[in-house]
Amino acid sequence: MLRLSGVGVSNGQAAGPVVRVAEPLPEPPASPAVTDPGAEAARISPAAQAVADGLFARAAGVEGDAKAVLETTAAMAMDPSLSSRAEQLVSQRAVPAPRAVLEAADEFAESLRATGGYLAERVRDVHDVRDRIIAELLGVRPPGVPTLLEPSVLLARDLAPADTADLDPDLVLALVTEEGGPTSHTAILARSLGIPAVVAVRGLLAGTSAIAAEVDGDSGAVGLSEERVEVRAAERADTANWTGSGGTSDGSRVKILANVGAAADTAAAVSARAEGVGLFRTEFCYLAAEDEPDVATQRAAYAEVLEPFAGKPVVVRTLDAGADKPLGFLETGAEPNPALGVRGLRVAFDRPEVLDRQLAAIAAAAGDSGADVSVMAPMVATPEEAAWFAERARTAGIARVGAMVEVPAAALIAGELLEAVDFVSIGTNDLAQYVFAADRQLGALAGLNDPWQPALLRLIAMIGRAGGETGKSVGVCGEAAADPLLGRVLVGLGVSSLSMVATAVPAVGSAVAGASLRACERAAEAALAASDAAGAKAAARAAFE
Amino acid sequence: MLRLSGVGVSNGQAAGPVVRVAEPLPEPPASPAVTDPGAEAARISPAAQAVADGLFARAAGVEGDAKAVLETTAAMAMDPSLSSRAEQLVSQRAVPAPRAVLEAADEFAESLRATGGYLAERVRDVHDVRDRIIAELLGVRPPGVPTLLEPSVLLARDLAPADTADLDPDLVLALVTEEGGPTSHTAILARSLGIPAVVAVRGLLAGTSAIAAEVDGDSGAVGLSEERVEVRAAERADTANWTGSGGTSDGSRVKILANVGAAADTAAAVSARAEGVGLFRTEFCYLAAEDEPDVATQRAAYAEVLEPFAGKPVVVRTLDAGADKPLGFLETGAEPNPALGVRGLRVAFDRPEVLDRQLAAIAAAAGDSGADVSVMAPMVATPEEAAWFAERARTAGIARVGAMVEVPAAALIAGELLEAVDFVSIGTNDLAQYVFAADRQLGALAGLNDPWQPALLRLIAMIGRAGGETGKSVGVCGEAAADPLLGRVLVGLGVSSLSMVATAVPAVGSAVAGASLRACERAAEAALAASDAAGAKAAARAAFE
Repeated sequence: MLRLSGVGVSNGQAAGPVVRVAEPLPEPPASPAVTDPGAEAARISPAAQAVADGLFARAAGVEGDAKAVLETTAAMAMDPSLSSRAEQLVSQRAVPAPRAVLEAADEFAESLRATGGYLAERVRDVHDVRDRIIAELLGVRPPGVPTLLEPSVLLARDLAPADTADLDPDLVLALVTEEGGPTSHTAILARSLGIPAVVAVRGLLAGTSAIAAEVDGDSGAVGLSEERVEVRAAERADTANWTGSGGTSDGSRVKILANVGAAADTAAAVSARAEGVGLFRTEFCYLAAEDEPDVATQRAAYAEVLEPFAGKPVVVRTLDAGADKPLGFLETGAEPNPALGVRGLRVAFDRPEVLDRQLAAIAAAAGDSGADVSVMAPMVATPEEAAWFAERARTAGIARVGAMVEVPAAALIAGELLEAVDFVSIGTNDLAQYVFAADRQLGALAGLNDPWQPALLRLIAMIGRAGGETGKSVGVCGEAAADPLLGRVLVGLGVSSLSMVATAVPAVGSAVAGASLRACERAAEAALAASDAAGAKAAARAAFE
Repeated sequence: MLRLSGVGVSNGQAAGPVVRVAEPLPEPPASPAVTDPGAEAARISPAAQAVADGLFARAAGVEGDAKAVLETTAAMAMDPSLSSRAEQLVSQRAVPAPRAVLEAADEFAESLRATGGYLAERVRDVHDVRDRIIAELLGVRPPGVPTLLEPSVLLARDLAPADTADLDPDLVLALVTEEGGPTSHTAILARSLGIPAVVAVRGLLAGTSAIAAEVDGDSGAVGLSEERVEVRAAERADTANWTGSGGTSDGSRVKILANVGAAADTAAAVSARAEGVGLFRTEFCYLAAEDEPDVATQRAAYAEVLEPFAGKPVVVRTLDAGADKPLGFLETGAEPNPALGVRGLRVAFDRPEVLDRQLAAIAAAAGDSGADVSVMAPMVATPEEAAWFAERARTAGIARVGAMVEVPAAALIAGELLEAVDFVSIGTNDLAQYVFAADRQLGALAGLNDPWQPALLRLIAMIGRAGGETGKSVGVCGEAAADPLLGRVLVGLGVSSLSMVATAVPAVGSAVAGASLRACERAAEAALAASDAAGAKAAARAAFE
């Protein structure tokens, strides 16, 4: 048994046969030149159509988010501008069709990147479509997850949304990736399915002939075996105690909320019986257009998301753009470290009119929908910034105003910050990135971005105390809130609302309902006293045993 | 009077006539083609020689660092590879000589960047030489600071080391820049000269016909006037109380140390009567060569820096490289946010043998020189990382081992960190950058990078308390230590050594000697209670009045 270790990002133990997610295709060569460019070019459209047909067929077999992901990818495969550009490249330069598709798709991806847009996901989708069409042209198996025939442990370099959209959760024992971090798609997916996952496992894919694996999502240990092992599935997170009204077993109120990013997400939040929305990301509305959408357009888009939550609390986060999340109409220029640059609320200091129009649209949509709307600003660093935002939001007619706590300074001065606003919501993903000076996107630093790190928990405790002292609400809307055990610890640290991916709502709501506030506090104290992440997690678990 | 505001980075008030630092030259055009490329090419070498002669002449009139900067720039101007490449471009493409110099210098700068090296400074030097030769060829005034004829306030976009190397400090009343931040060259220079400075002043250079200015380096206020104002010079920092042995007026010991980065810096440290070195940056040794220098080479280079400090304390920081400070032999790959990437000690986790060779060389050089050497690691985030480093350093024979505190997590877990090492040293520049998630290089975010921000002071207070509880030493080696008033506040926060640019040693040593520990503590308490940077500074000042 080859023993490796990574970062456990979703709890539980499992074992079973491995299935490897196919690696990306080698880059198709530009030579030799084809002898009949016309015939070669004519192969492209049918291949794209075949890929689209396959994706639509998979979409027909699933529901919800998975269906949307697969249909979006299928639509992109059928995009005539992609095929016609590839055909043109074959005709002009007599390159083989796979090469032409590669170049055309990369041009397309580049123009997406250049015109702005939340490129991480969309460029990945273009690459996915590109690789599927190339595989079709070459007559090889497309990259991605093969159809599972038995319960299996998936091994991959990293997983993209389209890779996993129609995975049968009942056949996935665990996810293990060589790259990725605690906030990667792999981690979020695993937590939402309640299956163990370990990411950033160095050496996972290097020349092993293992046929089975044992995975410990708590410790991050992964064993690879050349012989079969006994199949064990992790116990699925308990959701029995979730009543749809959040709180501890002794009646301390804790709101259990969902994160949503567009109207398509609301059905999952409602069906999970989330009590409302703790983080409504508004970027989708700006991505749809090249210019800033006008107030009426924004109002209608927000109202569509808000309507299913009439009478329920929804926290709307104002636009979070910047050099790392570029939008065409908000030019920020190149920055050496975009994550440390002019992003979030900082963009609004120069362009307050964009913020004011968004606030007006949110206020109007709140009235249209009947939802109980608050707003909060991203990337607030000082009480002065929070007060500046609060004044504009109140002027726009929004009564309840808050600030995200993602910048460590905001946490260190949380008492004064809470004097300027009505509540704060901790974005644990970015907060961890800054507290550890460790880019969330780097697999090599995934161990530092672990939300169980005691330094992060101590900073959250300071915010919790400030909330207690001021009598104001402290929420968490980062991925940390989606971990049932960590959710209890956060409650013990003074957090009174947890907002997460909708699929995690029942498990987290159930976990909180199954513990008393005092037990949560004891677990939090135990975790705070640890000197590393594994120790904090173990101490918290032991506190409940 | 046009009233503007920026970030005050060096204290004091001054007023007087303004002198504008010339803006960069417009880019020389590639056309029209020259009719006699041979004659045109022949103009280049004499122009480069004239530039070098001028710089050597300026170098002859000054001493120390200024001399070194000017001589280095002169030597670069005479570099035959630059002239011959420019001549080649004229011969090949018949472009005018100024254009050829531009392109040749930019190629040179690009290759510097690509082969690694601490490019920020060196690329700027190449650009400086390039612009001087182009100005010479065009017969125009070179960019940079004109010779001052009377006491003046300098206005600039930003200042480069070569701009200011031979400034006569007695003729500079204040520095004001449109860009830059609290850790920019402008700020460091102003503090070392004891003159007021304000950076990040938006609108400073935009279409004003002002002939005089009033500058308040405390508040960041700048007034521009179209009429003459009464000339006022700031009171120079008091250095009378500096005896060469640091401590408060009631005898609490505070070491006053210098930061050095190469053997050329040691003379200034000795003449300022620094008690030793609180930060010896070792990167210079790696920059000299393309490959990793061997142990013998490192040993000799370190010993040269250490020798002037025989019997005195010197804290050697191990190599701080990474994607933002690339070295050819330590490939780190491109990163989306290099400041949040694999840098500092993180590089050593993958390449421990490079660290071990450096530690061996430091230990040997310590023996050779008789200096009382400690080592510390940059970018430590967790107690586990600190312990890993300490074990390797002790194995190499170095008895006293510490960790830089620049990552907020290290500050939040300082108690446990201090169990693993003998001391910590706070790098306030990087710590502020991460605490505020605000790139030090961005003028737009300079207000957040102010070391007087209460959130930063509160975090430093946590480290000071951990030092008191563990009985271990807490130092500061960032630019914050060079501010006499802030130096007192840091002492009040529990800091027992201050290390800074050598020229600031007498003023800071004198300031600390002029206050009791209790007074420093009261000032620290007052600053901690403020809700913004200006309030913290004012409260600290009031505490001493």
